[in-house]
Amino acid sequence: MVVDPVPRPASAGAADRDAPVRQRSLRTHNLGLVLRQVAACPHPVSRADVAAATGLTKATVSTLVDELLAGALLVEVDPAPRSGAGRPAVGLRLAPHGPAGLGLEVNVDYLAACVVDLTGSVRHHRVDSADLRGRPPAQVLADLTDLAVATVAAAAADDLRIAGATVAVPGLVADGVVRLAPNLEWHEVAVRSMLGEALTRAGLAAVGASVIVENEANLAALGELGAWAEADPGAERASFLYISGEIGVGAGIVLGGRLFRGARGFGGELGHVTIRPDGPRCRCGARGCLEAYANQEAMLRAAGLDRSADDAVARLATQAAAGAPAALAAVAEAGTALGVAAASVVNLIDVDTVVLGGIYAPLAEWLIGPVGREISDRVLTAQWAPVTVRASVLGPSATVVGAAGSVVRTIRDAPAAWLTGGP
Amino acid sequence: MVVDPVPRPASAGAADRDAPVRQRSLRTHNLGLVLRQVAACPHPVSRADVAAATGLTKATVSTLVDELLAGALLVEVDPAPRSGAGRPAVGLRLAPHGPAGLGLEVNVDYLAACVVDLTGSVRHHRVDSADLRGRPPAQVLADLTDLAVATVAAAAADDLRIAGATVAVPGLVADGVVRLAPNLEWHEVAVRSMLGEALTRAGLAAVGASVIVENEANLAALGELGAWAEADPGAERASFLYISGEIGVGAGIVLGGRLFRGARGFGGELGHVTIRPDGPRCRCGARGCLEAYANQEAMLRAAGLDRSADDAVARLATQAAAGAPAALAAVAEAGTALGVAAASVVNLIDVDTVVLGGIYAPLAEWLIGPVGREISDRVLTAQWAPVTVRASVLGPSATVVGAAGSVVRTIRDAPAAWLTGGP
Repeated sequence: MVVDPVPRPASAGAADRDAPVRQRSLRTHNLGLVLRQVAACPHPVSRADVAAATGLTKATVSTLVDELLAGALLVEVDPAPRSGAGRPAVGLRLAPHGPAGLGLEVNVDYLAACVVDLTGSVRHHRVDSADLRGRPPAQVLADLTDLAVATVAAAAADDLRIAGATVAVPGLVADGVVRLAPNLEWHEVAVRSMLGEALTRAGLAAVGASVIVENEANLAALGELGAWAEADPGAERASFLYISGEIGVGAGIVLGGRLFRGARGFGGELGHVTIRPDGPRCRCGARGCLEAYANQEAMLRAAGLDRSADDAVARLATQAAAGAPAALAAVAEAGTALGVAAASVVNLIDVDTVVLGGIYAPLAEWLIGPVGREISDRVLTAQWAPVTVRASVLGPSATVVGAAGSVVRTIRDAPAAWLTGGP
Repeated sequence: MVVDPVPRPASAGAADRDAPVRQRSLRTHNLGLVLRQVAACPHPVSRADVAAATGLTKATVSTLVDELLAGALLVEVDPAPRSGAGRPAVGLRLAPHGPAGLGLEVNVDYLAACVVDLTGSVRHHRVDSADLRGRPPAQVLADLTDLAVATVAAAAADDLRIAGATVAVPGLVADGVVRLAPNLEWHEVAVRSMLGEALTRAGLAAVGASVIVENEANLAALGELGAWAEADPGAERASFLYISGEIGVGAGIVLGGRLFRGARGFGGELGHVTIRPDGPRCRCGARGCLEAYANQEAMLRAAGLDRSADDAVARLATQAAAGAPAALAAVAEAGTALGVAAASVVNLIDVDTVVLGGIYAPLAEWLIGPVGREISDRVLTAQWAPVTVRASVLGPSATVVGAAGSVVRTIRDAPAAWLTGGP
């Protein structure tokens, strides 16, 4: 499973364009090219295969492969028997040992940690349940550090070295600071520096120095992308809207296989797209936001279900499956609101797929119809550019798996930086 | 005035990433780097200045500059007297003669043509008024060809060679075909091939082979970007939503100085973002679209003004300026709807500026308030990432100037392609 790194701002491409290309950056570029070529093949490939696929000379490929072998990014495997003349070539594949990514997650009712190796496989995954609402951030991050330390130790026992850590939080993030995480009651919490220092004190200085903080819906979208790409390498460049239903309603937008965060990094706030300008009051203070129509609380209230029960969403799905009118009406109403908002996203961003994640995944059977109907009614271009609505393929682990995978993708995108600067 | 080229799809960057870098592409990259460095300075610069600014060696810069001089992209100018030792260096600047861009525009009530030279200056600009609703597309494109021929001849008399043409249409465009232009009553019109053949028959084969077809709001947004960049080079990387009010409501989204068209090229359909799911019927068939609340017809009807008068919008502005309650209420209602839709765009794409163009520009005095109010009420991140609402700086010429400028920007982005393949 391979996922996208935390993205660069929209203008980064233009900045690259204005950098001079010299011999050093040529090597940097081509190292990545060779590594990704090996990664793109489901079976081991030879140096000659890589040369043929990339257009580089065999001599150049050999030099670059030697660097990638020395850095534990590639391994050689036994040559496969081959038809035709000449001795069989040595195969290359991504190293299953060596650098790996650590994903961490703070959610409202659990902490999680996950390790993904360079091949994209999940190697370790731990979840600690706990009600974290209103707990002091320093305490939460201390517990997360303990979980990280145990996970890194388990990874080390498997010969995996953690190349970096990405932590998912359910809130607005900028520059490593959680500006606002309403369900945790966090305001202006400097997660990157606090967690980085805690990891350093716990003996993980290199990991602590690498911490990236990211919104959970963005990372869940990357987790979904990685799961698709694992099943079909062509999906690595997919474009979709991932809707993450939880206590709030979040979204991650992926364009061409890259996370799209808008001009300043705060994009994707689907939960606050207006459904009706004079609708019910949202927690954000505005009226008629999607979140006020389609979050967990709104659905459970409309269905007449106890909102405090741990398994409330599962009960809503059970009632809908049994044909209970109140449950079906509640889910249909949420689906219509989700469809109105998704249609606006498609009108503006023209994605071809809408993914229902989080609590919407187990309810997808009853949501896909109304969401799709609103999109086909409201998207001007739907007749030329159809849109698919589907349930997410990953469960609740999408977020933490996406977080770990984002570290791995950073190495795969820029192996030269890892070879020279890795911990 | 320098504007963005018609953009590549979102995944193009990833495709570039997987191309090998060899000596040839190194030269290609560095030619662009040198040309843009000269373009970025308001005064002539020396070869040594370019070397210092780009990090390339003086010898490399000299070789590249010679190529750009030979291709008529740069010119040498008299050395400025210089303090310090040594003889003054020869200055370099963009060539005011040589390659230039041709912009063409089909609107509902006029045709237009425009030539922009490599420095970004508008050199020719012609507008022919005519009611084009319901006229056969072939007739309209024949008239546009006549206008193009006359404009190219005028440019040739000024020693300008047309490097390519971009044509703006008020509709949905894909692959050179206008899928739908409701106000022209065009459906599936192959504008690129029809206009290309007409230009070729008229003796402009090279221009005919270069035709690009683009939505008018997208090109108006690029025209606006170019006007900003002319006033302030730092604005070349601006991000904004440009709202184009006409018979319909269009939009162009610019991110980091590049047009953003979404995953499949149909993005930016602001006019069909939902304001109220059960609102008035829109021409597109859906209910409650922005266009049904805020287009020209909706405002004039609400103000009780004659919708058929040529100067109806000017009269609406006059009445608003005079404090007429019906006019003020009509504009405020449109402004509220525009603000609800713009807030959804900011929540999703996080642009920092909203530009009111087309018929909204002369009404901006009364629109900016309600648009800004809805944005600050409805955008979750407005307190960390403020949003400015302003009138467009260009008049109705934004579209055709943007179209011509997009050709010039293509050359400035990739001069090597022009040097080897120019007409």
